Amino acid sequence: MIVVMKGGCTKEEINTVVCRIEEYGLKAHVSQGVEHTIIGILGQIFPELQDRMELLPGVEEVIPISKPYKLASREFHPQNTVVTINDITIGGDEIVVMAGPCAVETEEQLLTTALAVKASGANILRGGAFKPSTSPYHFRGLGEEGLKLLAKVREETGMPVITEVMTPKDVELVAGYADILQIGARNMQNFILLDEVGKTNKPVMLKRGLSATIQEWLLAAEYILAQGNDQVILCERGIRTFETHTRYTMDVSAIPAIKKVSHLPIIADPSHATGKWYLVTPVALAAIAAGADGLMVEVHPNPDLALKDGAQSLTFDNFGKLMSQLTPIAQATGRKLAVSGIKASP
Amino acid sequence: MIVVMKGGCTKEEINTVVCRIEEYGLKAHVSQGVEHTIIGILGQIFPELQDRMELLPGVEEVIPISKPYKLASREFHPQNTVVTINDITIGGDEIVVMAGPCAVETEEQLLTTALAVKASGANILRGGAFKPSTSPYHFRGLGEEGLKLLAKVREETGMPVITEVMTPKDVELVAGYADILQIGARNMQNFILLDEVGKTNKPVMLKRGLSATIQEWLLAAEYILAQGNDQVILCERGIRTFETHTRYTMDVSAIPAIKKVSHLPIIADPSHATGKWYLVTPVALAAIAAGADGLMVEVHPNPDLALKDGAQSLTFDNFGKLMSQLTPIAQATGRKLAVSGIKASP
Amino acid sequence: MIVVMKGGCTKEEINTVVCRIEEYGLKAHVSQGVEHTIIGILGQIFPELQDRMELLPGVEEVIPISKPYKLASREFHPQNTVVTINDITIGGDEIVVMAGPCAVETEEQLLTTALAVKASGANILRGGAFKPSTSPYHFRGLGEEGLKLLAKVREETGMPVITEVMTPKDVELVAGYADILQIGARNMQNFILLDEVGKTNKPVMLKRGLSATIQEWLLAAEYILAQGNDQVILCERGIRTFETHTRYTMDVSAIPAIKKVSHLPIIADPSHATGKWYLVTPVALAAIAAGADGLMVEVHPNPDLALKDGAQSLTFDNFGKLMSQLTPIAQATGRKLAVSGIKASP
Amino acid sequence: MIVVMKGGCTKEEINTVVCRIEEYGLKAHVSQGVEHTIIGILGQIFPELQDRMELLPGVEEVIPISKPYKLASREFHPQNTVVTINDITIGGDEIVVMAGPCAVETEEQLLTTALAVKASGANILRGGAFKPSTSPYHFRGLGEEGLKLLAKVREETGMPVITEVMTPKDVELVAGYADILQIGARNMQNFILLDEVGKTNKPVMLKRGLSATIQEWLLAAEYILAQGNDQVILCERGIRTFETHTRYTMDVSAIPAIKKVSHLPIIADPSHATGKWYLVTPVALAAIAAGADGLMVEVHPNPDLALKDGAQSLTFDNFGKLMSQLTPIAQATGRKLAVSGIKASP
Repeated sequence: MIVVMKGGCTKEEINTVVCRIEEYGLKAHVSQGVEHTIIGILGQIFPELQDRMELLPGVEEVIPISKPYKLASREFHPQNTVVTINDITIGGDEIVVMAGPCAVETEEQLLTTALAVKASGANILRGGAFKPSTSPYHFRGLGEEGLKLLAKVREETGMPVITEVMTPKDVELVAGYADILQIGARNMQNFILLDEVGKTNKPVMLKRGLSATIQEWLLAAEYILAQGNDQVILCERGIRTFETHTRYTMDVSAIPAIKKVSHLPIIADPSHATGKWYLVTPVALAAIAAGADGLMVEVHPNPDLALKDGAQSLTFDNFGKLMSQLTPIAQATGRKLAVSGIKASP
Repeated sequence: MIVVMKGGCTKEEINTVVCRIEEYGLKAHVSQGVEHTIIGILGQIFPELQDRMELLPGVEEVIPISKPYKLASREFHPQNTVVTINDITIGGDEIVVMAGPCAVETEEQLLTTALAVKASGANILRGGAFKPSTSPYHFRGLGEEGLKLLAKVREETGMPVITEVMTPKDVELVAGYADILQIGARNMQNFILLDEVGKTNKPVMLKRGLSATIQEWLLAAEYILAQGNDQVILCERGIRTFETHTRYTMDVSAIPAIKKVSHLPIIADPSHATGKWYLVTPVALAAIAAGADGLMVEVHPNPDLALKDGAQSLTFDNFGKLMSQLTPIAQATGRKLAVSGIKASP
Repeated sequence: MIVVMKGGCTKEEINTVVCRIEEYGLKAHVSQGVEHTIIGILGQIFPELQDRMELLPGVEEVIPISKPYKLASREFHPQNTVVTINDITIGGDEIVVMAGPCAVETEEQLLTTALAVKASGANILRGGAFKPSTSPYHFRGLGEEGLKLLAKVREETGMPVITEVMTPKDVELVAGYADILQIGARNMQNFILLDEVGKTNKPVMLKRGLSATIQEWLLAAEYILAQGNDQVILCERGIRTFETHTRYTMDVSAIPAIKKVSHLPIIADPSHATGKWYLVTPVALAAIAAGADGLMVEVHPNPDLALKDGAQSLTFDNFGKLMSQLTPIAQATGRKLAVSGIKASP
Repeated sequence: MIVVMKGGCTKEEINTVVCRIEEYGLKAHVSQGVEHTIIGILGQIFPELQDRMELLPGVEEVIPISKPYKLASREFHPQNTVVTINDITIGGDEIVVMAGPCAVETEEQLLTTALAVKASGANILRGGAFKPSTSPYHFRGLGEEGLKLLAKVREETGMPVITEVMTPKDVELVAGYADILQIGARNMQNFILLDEVGKTNKPVMLKRGLSATIQEWLLAAEYILAQGNDQVILCERGIRTFETHTRYTMDVSAIPAIKKVSHLPIIADPSHATGKWYLVTPVALAAIAAGADGLMVEVHPNPDLALKDGAQSLTFDNFGKLMSQLTPIAQATGRKLAVSGIKASP
């Protein structure tokens, strides 16, 4: 941590800063610049230090040097984390595709969708039983009934299941059915929920918050990792910007940026990012080309009758086309689509 | 709801849209423009309709006309909602000031702060017992111990207490101690928490999410109102923008904008919005001049030793100055500072 | 254009709106909804109409239906525009790569770079002679001297040249040297400059403004097209968002979105979008996978000695690697890299 | 400037950085931290240094310490700049109000508006002769004809005139008519225009760019100051954010933030910031309460017939109400409205 003193600060002010640093058992390292005196702080920095230093007289600015996350950082954990679900790996050489309806509606809807996406090469079945919704008057999901349908369709198709958990009290329930627990974008900083899923032994997919910086996102992952659960998958799903033509803005640069600073796998959700079905495929291909470890895509038998997010759902046909365009892109990046979901047919 | 057809759409496509509308028991009203055919939908619109219409062939765009919130809208409830806590009113003629430390640390810290802010004219004591924190390694609050200290200091000072509840399971606990339940910005779309506080009989202060639109904010309020709790106070606390000079950007226009479309009281939190103590007072004055019903301000006996958010906390002295500048501003807008907190001295 | 009346508006207010519409020689089409009366306006809408209608008593909102741009829209011009420079086409089957230094510094720097990028497969040489710079104290380019060096190196390598023009008075000068005129992001709404390049017969590459919506971008293109110059290439170069990890946020969804609503070719600039050389290649690949017609990439013989934007410049080696990864991605999307620049060797 | 080395960097890498610094005639100051080695650079930093250091092997990050602007900074120029136009001062004790139509349309429109706003207490007449417009099909102003009308109405009312100059070649022309030159938001980084107005002896009002940071804004001011023109007034006019309820988001915190870091006067434009006439007054009052030195407000005799920006224009009546609410707010902040415009009546 570095303390930058104001232009005309006094010797006394510098001394006060140095004394305060030493009171905390840290070392101060003063360096006289042309315009500014700079004081480096050496030792085990504690979180409140920055605020405290900023308020001392004569201080212009305090600049943290170390990243605030550890367990999520590549510095701490140089090799890639690979999450394994049955015979599927996420974060290794394979590209994994999670597909299915936004919300579980009926057994028939779920089963036909699962069979269709599996036939096209999807590996993991997605489907919401508990659905966050901007309005209290919209469909909020089937709840446990939906979880049971997911389990049943997993039985029939052999596909592992990912589904969202929205609140701490449901973690045990959802973990009883799901193969991967999903934390939605609006819950990325629901810290108690993060603690709770961190205590399970299930992989957790953590969506990026609507306006979360990369650092805040990794700090949210750190909550889960700090509880001992190291099976965390990140999911870039678009950030909120001034542009309203698309529902959100897919931050495609975040994919290689995360790969640089963290060891965690990262997948992309082009359905929520764009909000428009005809943008899903190009943006999905872009994410893989940028190095994403997989995709999460919304597919519905009849998007124009869906209870939720129809406008961004692919038909079976369009999903098939996406998968066939995905194969050469994956190869072009030196990777291949995971095939396990397909082999393990019922 | 209005369906805009594409430039060269066919008669058949128009017919399909009209039929689909009528299948839902709604009326379609076709109107041939120079460039586009437009189809108005009359009747009781349901939430999924927009998505469904957008996917029909020949449709360019679907435009909703009615606002998605009802109970929170001024159209539905023309007169201002006034929330009453003891003899303090929020949303009427009085300007109410909530002040206190970011986090409850010790009884002494809380009591001296309460006495100091009360002496300067604050009406309600703020203080966090459960603290959301971006990093798992930062101070997360004293928990129930903090709630007990709040209750004790309320006893000693006569000041009602506002404190945050972070998760559904704590709602009953926190409601047992607090006079106002606070929902933090990161929980604005924690829908299950909103349901839960909506079931209590305590006033709820709902902070705006970091990147929530005014409409999403009012829909979050709608969740609480829909459960039967009509004592909702909104709190503008800054939104996330590209500007990093301040911690967030205080959206001062949101204050009169909310007043126009909603009947709910709205207060401002200049401490979180700016993140810098020396910006708190000018931004507080601005919020009141723009029509806010009150303020929430962080005050600490020793900001440079605070366990949380020291950089944005006012000293007792600076808070006193804020209050003395606030009085003439309130008068200039035809309002006056609430005085109840002061009279009820211990 | 649609006028939405307020919930409880009077018949008189509706009549006033209808009369005003008819005074303008337009037709009004009234439609009574459950909550709102809606008035469609039929006829040749003029730009000020929306503002004027919004101010009439009883009006809640005015919603434009037609897009405000014509010449840039795919509706008006369904087939793709293909811009031709010598034997290179932009907007057709080929992927074109523009590469070179951010700023022209010396003949040697420019020539070695041109030869290196050409050897790796680049088609067009980029290099700034007039450089916009956030600070008045930074390098602002060699001016006409730089243009002369560009022309000389074009002579020696056979590569067409793209370079920026910053102000109307320089248009003629720059057009005398350049094969493509570049309009920088900060000048996207320099309307007089847009008029001026619209009057030349040179292709114009129009970068997206830092916070320009897709619609504003196409309206800026419309300025150029409206002057009779139909050789416009769009360039997505990242938008400004809250995320500061990258310099800007590459809006990869804008690429297929532009393809949907416009016929103009679009290329991507991953160097400016990311600001970090190690993110350039993955983001470049993503842009091509999303359907971009080409790339603009900054390359420098010694990025750590560059006079401008060294941190985002690729070395010759890294550019070579980018090109070799690009080939299979282009193939995977059914396209191929343009080869003309390579054949036309000096 | 501080160079932060990577966690496991080698001694050789540190040496290379130190050598490179010394090659530039600067001093390096190495400091070994727990996790990172930090190298301070002492001496006269040049602009390209940051980029160059970032690219050296083993370097994690380079952090600039000094602000990139000098002439605009309060550190360099501690006392407030006060701009004087006739007997009006901007940046001192007085609050100055600039009012008038968005665009000059006719002599009658301009004169009646000038007389009305003057009668209500406005000091300076605003009116656009050259108008930037998002669409090429909208009204772009009367040009020199408009300037002549402004001069004529100045003659008749005694009000100084502020009007926009959009392009370098018009600077001389506009400076021949105007008392203050206005640089619009979209031209904030039109660097050649900034150079040009910097060479005149007229005060310049520099609007903040739509997505300009405070630092970029001050650097734009630095361009003008660096040419020798020290009469610069800043104007906060709203920034672009995700919120679409208002046209832009008035960044009210920027007002005290600018006062802290710069000596330049700052005024606010609530008309463009909000885009809605009924939000103009509360936001204007907020800006003054936050410490702004004045306002720029759009007023039109018949907003519903305005050729430009009618929706955000005040009627004469509403402007009168704004002014009467402004007086006590100004007093509450220890200031008073400038009265010169009123005394100098024709």
